[in-house]
Amino acid sequence: MNRTAFFISDGTGITAETLGQSLLSQFENIRFTKLLRPYVDTVEKARDMVQQINAAAERDGQRPIIFDTVVNAEIRAELATCNGYMVDIFSTFLSPLEQELGDGSSYSVGKSHSISHNGHYKDRIDAVHYAMDNDDGARTHHYETADIILVGVSRCGKTPTCLYMALQYGIRAANYPLTDEDMEGLRLPKALLPHKGKLFGLTIEPDRLASIRHERRPNSRYASFPQCDFEVREVEKLYRKLNIPYINSTHFSVEEISAKILVEMGIERRLK
Amino acid sequence: MNRTAFFISDGTGITAETLGQSLLSQFENIRFTKLLRPYVDTVEKARDMVQQINAAAERDGQRPIIFDTVVNAEIRAELATCNGYMVDIFSTFLSPLEQELGDGSSYSVGKSHSISHNGHYKDRIDAVHYAMDNDDGARTHHYETADIILVGVSRCGKTPTCLYMALQYGIRAANYPLTDEDMEGLRLPKALLPHKGKLFGLTIEPDRLASIRHERRPNSRYASFPQCDFEVREVEKLYRKLNIPYINSTHFSVEEISAKILVEMGIERRLK
Repeated sequence: MNRTAFFISDGTGITAETLGQSLLSQFENIRFTKLLRPYVDTVEKARDMVQQINAAAERDGQRPIIFDTVVNAEIRAELATCNGYMVDIFSTFLSPLEQELGDGSSYSVGKSHSISHNGHYKDRIDAVHYAMDNDDGARTHHYETADIILVGVSRCGKTPTCLYMALQYGIRAANYPLTDEDMEGLRLPKALLPHKGKLFGLTIEPDRLASIRHERRPNSRYASFPQCDFEVREVEKLYRKLNIPYINSTHFSVEEISAKILVEMGIERRLK
Repeated sequence: MNRTAFFISDGTGITAETLGQSLLSQFENIRFTKLLRPYVDTVEKARDMVQQINAAAERDGQRPIIFDTVVNAEIRAELATCNGYMVDIFSTFLSPLEQELGDGSSYSVGKSHSISHNGHYKDRIDAVHYAMDNDDGARTHHYETADIILVGVSRCGKTPTCLYMALQYGIRAANYPLTDEDMEGLRLPKALLPHKGKLFGLTIEPDRLASIRHERRPNSRYASFPQCDFEVREVEKLYRKLNIPYINSTHFSVEEISAKILVEMGIERRLK
């Protein structure tokens, strides 16, 4: 059984998509075709959307589910003529919130993901450049301005995690790869010693690591299971010996790893 | 007037935060202190949350606004004892959706941002590594596998945009800096010629560009207004001459730029 879902917005569509995905993920028996439609910001575009929705309804033999965050009343009215089940995100919550807050909503479009509403936008972009410049131990003399330094063996997920924390939360995250050399003595590299309080470790199941490394350098010693197994075992020993907090990234997404790290490190995310 | 808002979840908190931020951004006259509380996944942690909420209520002299996506009934019951105004995201929409879909919700925790629910997770991580490896024209021999190649002058926003498209949508985005040399002849660099259909241009207001470059290399020719003005003018000429679609990034966030690019290029985002 296939059912189509539309995430429609007059802005980026991020809110409609995020909430819609969350809600639909609760219905495991249904296969959804999910379509994101940002910047539906004229009545004409809404009319085109109605046609797309009605076509999907005919194709599926069932009306599509519509998650929308459109603010403009005229565009909303046009959309409402479609043959879809409307999950009307804003109007459901806005008027009760107006009551509670004793203040009128501004009914303005696309504020949440705009620069102007985002006091920390520049911090986020600066953090992205920081993460790029301080990726993979590329340089270590800017660690005093890091919020966090991720450590771990090569290809355990440090880079995507740093970039996610930077982009979403403006966290200045550097990362440093632990190598064979560090493991032999079970010592921290010199560059990390003064920043021990900022270190957070990642670890990963050795067979998963081997398969990731294999894609990069097939049949190398680097990608072999014994080598991966050795590195992971040693690095976990190092974390325990030095009391470095760490998590196993194998079964978690960057979103989950980042949230767990921030909770454990007690970093208050810089929310807009 | 200050009011505290909590985004509470037994998962990453991304859905609660995204929806909460969107809704609160509609109330421009109220200053909110926003607190993200992910992984509230035990009754004990919920009890601690209740204390935090009640303390904020006392501090502010007004009850906090609580956006929550907690699924577990016991944890929800504990949270409900707090002195806060609850915006109950899941329960508001789930039972009407159950009716419409003719199927029960699984009431499972944190599915939306997990790896298992995200068929394209590996694509996203691969796309991040692709964006890193193909940043700033670092190499050009992998452009045939690019979904898009962003072009523009140095520091106009190419890198953060590529990383955002990669992380959020699994789009393989390379970027290539256009320099003085390219501008003299108003020609595309050789490496880009075979991929003209994948090019998308960014431009930026010259004074904004000068201020960004100034932070990087203060008082350089590179950061001077005349140089920035020249580069921007020439690069826009190039876009128009070659019919390369482009947008001005000055007043838009990476979220907005990415959404606009995907709409213009007609790239269907790879949704989970």
